[in-house]
Amino acid sequence: MQYDDEFSDLAKRLKASEIRELLKLTQMPDIISFAGGLPNPLSFPVEDIKEIMNSLLDNEGAKILQYGSTEGVISFRDALVDMMKNRYNVSAKRDEILITAGSQEALYLLAKIFVNPGDKVVIEAPTYIGVLTAFQSYSPSYVPIEMDDEGMNTQILEDKLKEIKKEGKKPKLIYTIPSFQNPAGVTMNLERRKHLLELSEEYDILVVEDDPYGELRYSGERLPLLKSLDKDHRVIYLGTFSKVLSPGFRLAHMIAHEDIIRKAVLAKQGIDLCTNTVGQYVARDYINKGYLDKHMPKVIELYKGKRDLMLDMMEDYFPDGVKWTKPDGGMFLWVRLPDGMDAEAMFKRAIENKVAYVIGSAFYPNRDHKNTFRLNFTYPTDEQIKEGIKRLGKVIKEEMS
Amino acid sequence: MQYDDEFSDLAKRLKASEIRELLKLTQMPDIISFAGGLPNPLSFPVEDIKEIMNSLLDNEGAKILQYGSTEGVISFRDALVDMMKNRYNVSAKRDEILITAGSQEALYLLAKIFVNPGDKVVIEAPTYIGVLTAFQSYSPSYVPIEMDDEGMNTQILEDKLKEIKKEGKKPKLIYTIPSFQNPAGVTMNLERRKHLLELSEEYDILVVEDDPYGELRYSGERLPLLKSLDKDHRVIYLGTFSKVLSPGFRLAHMIAHEDIIRKAVLAKQGIDLCTNTVGQYVARDYINKGYLDKHMPKVIELYKGKRDLMLDMMEDYFPDGVKWTKPDGGMFLWVRLPDGMDAEAMFKRAIENKVAYVIGSAFYPNRDHKNTFRLNFTYPTDEQIKEGIKRLGKVIKEEMS
Repeated sequence: MQYDDEFSDLAKRLKASEIRELLKLTQMPDIISFAGGLPNPLSFPVEDIKEIMNSLLDNEGAKILQYGSTEGVISFRDALVDMMKNRYNVSAKRDEILITAGSQEALYLLAKIFVNPGDKVVIEAPTYIGVLTAFQSYSPSYVPIEMDDEGMNTQILEDKLKEIKKEGKKPKLIYTIPSFQNPAGVTMNLERRKHLLELSEEYDILVVEDDPYGELRYSGERLPLLKSLDKDHRVIYLGTFSKVLSPGFRLAHMIAHEDIIRKAVLAKQGIDLCTNTVGQYVARDYINKGYLDKHMPKVIELYKGKRDLMLDMMEDYFPDGVKWTKPDGGMFLWVRLPDGMDAEAMFKRAIENKVAYVIGSAFYPNRDHKNTFRLNFTYPTDEQIKEGIKRLGKVIKEEMS
Repeated sequence: MQYDDEFSDLAKRLKASEIRELLKLTQMPDIISFAGGLPNPLSFPVEDIKEIMNSLLDNEGAKILQYGSTEGVISFRDALVDMMKNRYNVSAKRDEILITAGSQEALYLLAKIFVNPGDKVVIEAPTYIGVLTAFQSYSPSYVPIEMDDEGMNTQILEDKLKEIKKEGKKPKLIYTIPSFQNPAGVTMNLERRKHLLELSEEYDILVVEDDPYGELRYSGERLPLLKSLDKDHRVIYLGTFSKVLSPGFRLAHMIAHEDIIRKAVLAKQGIDLCTNTVGQYVARDYINKGYLDKHMPKVIELYKGKRDLMLDMMEDYFPDGVKWTKPDGGMFLWVRLPDGMDAEAMFKRAIENKVAYVIGSAFYPNRDHKNTFRLNFTYPTDEQIKEGIKRLGKVIKEEMS
C-alpha cells in the first residue's frame, strides 16, 4: 500500500527536520554533548518521589490510578493556586488553571485555539524550538523580535506593532520566555516587562509567558512574573514540573482567563482526555509537603556550579572574537561567532572532535543567524564540561584559521 | 479583553457538548450512575504497581524520571513486541510501535495525519464518542455502518464502498472496535473480520482496529485480532493499558507500518514531545514480570460477575418490548427501547429517580437513534447494579405508560 498518497495535506508538510538528524549525531558514543536540553538526573528528588508514591498507593490508590477530569485533578489545581500566590504573588482561581502534558501540549493547545493560517505571532529571535514545532500545524506568520542581554527589545516590538497596525492587523499572540530564555539564556529586565504589558494593552494582544526555568536562578534578584503584573487577564502563563520535579511525569500548568481555559479544555478533550493522574497527585504532595521548597536549593547549587565552570572554561579556552551570554539562571547559554563564520559548517568538525552543540539557526523560523550556537550546561558532568569546552575551543580556533 | 474575537475558526467550532452537560448531572450525590466508562478501582493492581515502582525508583530512577523519545521507551516497545507475539500472534517490529497518551491521542494523531476536511471515514453506528471528539478538528464526512449482534455488518459496508467508488472516491479510514464494542457491547464474528480485511484490500483502505477491551472476555472463544490476519500492513492497531493496568498512566500503543508511525511521531513531537516515561517503565515491568498474566483473571472474574448480575436484573425488571445486547466482554451493553420512545426525554425522569445512563444518540455523529442508551457494568458496585436496574426498570415502565 502507498501510504504517502493517504496522508493529509497537513501531514505531507510535516517533515523530519535536519536539526533532528544533527541531534542524532550528538548521541554517538564518546561525544561530549552540550546539545541536549535535559535536566541533570542528579536533580531528581528520587527519595521524595518514592515516599510520596508509596503513601499515595497505600492511601489513595483507587483515585491516583483512575481517569481524571480534562481540567486536571482538583486538589492539584488547588495546590497550584496556593503555590502561585505564595511563590509568585499571582492570584489565580482553580478554574483558571489547566493541567497539560508538559508545556509542549499547552503550546499546541494555544496554537490550536488561537491561530488561523497566516495569523501573526510575535516570537523572540532566537526562540524555543518547541514553540515552532507546536505552532507549525497552524501555519502562523512569525514576527521575530531581536533580543539583547536584557531580553526581548520591547522598543523594536513597539515599532513592529505600530507598523502592523498601519496594515490594519494585529498579532494574535506575543510569545516570550522572559527568564533565562531558551536558547539565549538572557532575562527580560523589569522595565521591559512593564513595557511589554503596556504594549499588550495598547495593541490589545494576548501574551504567552513561558516560564520553565524561573525557579533556576543562580545569581541576581528575582524579577516579577509578567503574570503577577497582569491587570487585565492578558497573560497566559505556562509553568512546568519538568525542571523542578521530573520531566518523566509530563506535567505542566496553563494559567489564563476562564474563557481561554474552557476553550483549551475542549481542545484537550479530543487530544488526550486528561493528563496522567499519577503524576498530578505526586506533584500535589511534592508541593503540599514542602518538598519543592526543600529540594530547589540543591538543584540550584548543582547547576550554579556547572554554569560557573562552563563560563570559566570558555573564558580560558575560547578564542578572541567569540561572544557569549552570561545567564543568571536556566539551562543554556548562547554563543556568537564572529560574523561570516558558520556554526553549521563547523558542526562536522565539532563531531570529529567529539563535542556537540545545537546550531543557532535551528532557533529561527527562517534558519538564519548561522554564526550562533546553543550550549547546555545542566546535563553534562563537570569533567565533560572541562574536556568538552577545551575541545570546542580548539574546533573554533581551527575553523577560524 | 474580548477573548471570543481572538479564537481561531477551528476553536469557534469547538463547543461544550450537551452530552457532557448531561454527564455532569450523573455525578450528583445519590445518583446510581451507569453512565461512566470507568474501570472498577478494585481492578487496579495496586500492590504490583507499588512493588514495581519501588524497584524502578531504587534502580532506574534517573531513567524513569527523564524525558523519553517521542516514539516511546525502547525497552517498553520491546516488551510490547513480545506481548503482541505471545498473546495475539501479531508480529510487529519495535519501529512499528508508537507509545501514545492513551488511545485518545492515537485517534487524534490518526485524524491529524490522514484526514483532510470532507474526507470520508467509515465508522460503526453507534460508535465510540472519543473518536468523534478526536476527529472533529479535521472535519471528516462520516460513513456510518449499522451493526447487529455479530458486529459491523460488512455486507452493508461492501455496498457502501461500491457506491462511494462509483462517485470516484474512497474513504480514508475504516474505524472499528471489533471486540466488545463501545457502546454496543457486540463482537465482530470471524467471517466478518475476514470480509472486512478483504474489502480493505479490494478498495485499498486503511483499517483502524481499536482494541481497548480485548482482554476483558467473560464468555465465548477468543477471536483473532484483525491485525493478526493483516497480510498487507493495512491495519493500524490501537491497544491500551487503561483497562489492564490503570487509566491514570495514560498509556497506549499504536502498531502500524513504519511509514505511518514515522508520520505520527512527527505529529506527536509538536503535541507533547513524548508520553510520560514513568508509566512506560511501570507497564514494561508489569508485562515482563508476568503480572499482567497473573492479574487479568481477577479482573475478568470481577467484571463477569457484574455483567451477569446486570443481565439477570434487566431480565427481571425491564418491561417487555425493551431489547439489549448480551456482551461476551468489555464494559458496556446497549439498550433499545421500543420505536418511538426517546431515551433523551426519559433522562430527566431517570435523574429524578436517581439513576443515570448515556443517551444513545451521543454515539451517532448526527444524533439520531433516540430510543437507545448505554449502560456500564464495570464501575458500579453489585448493590448499585441491583438497586439501579430496579429504578431504571421503573423509569422505563412509567415512560411507556
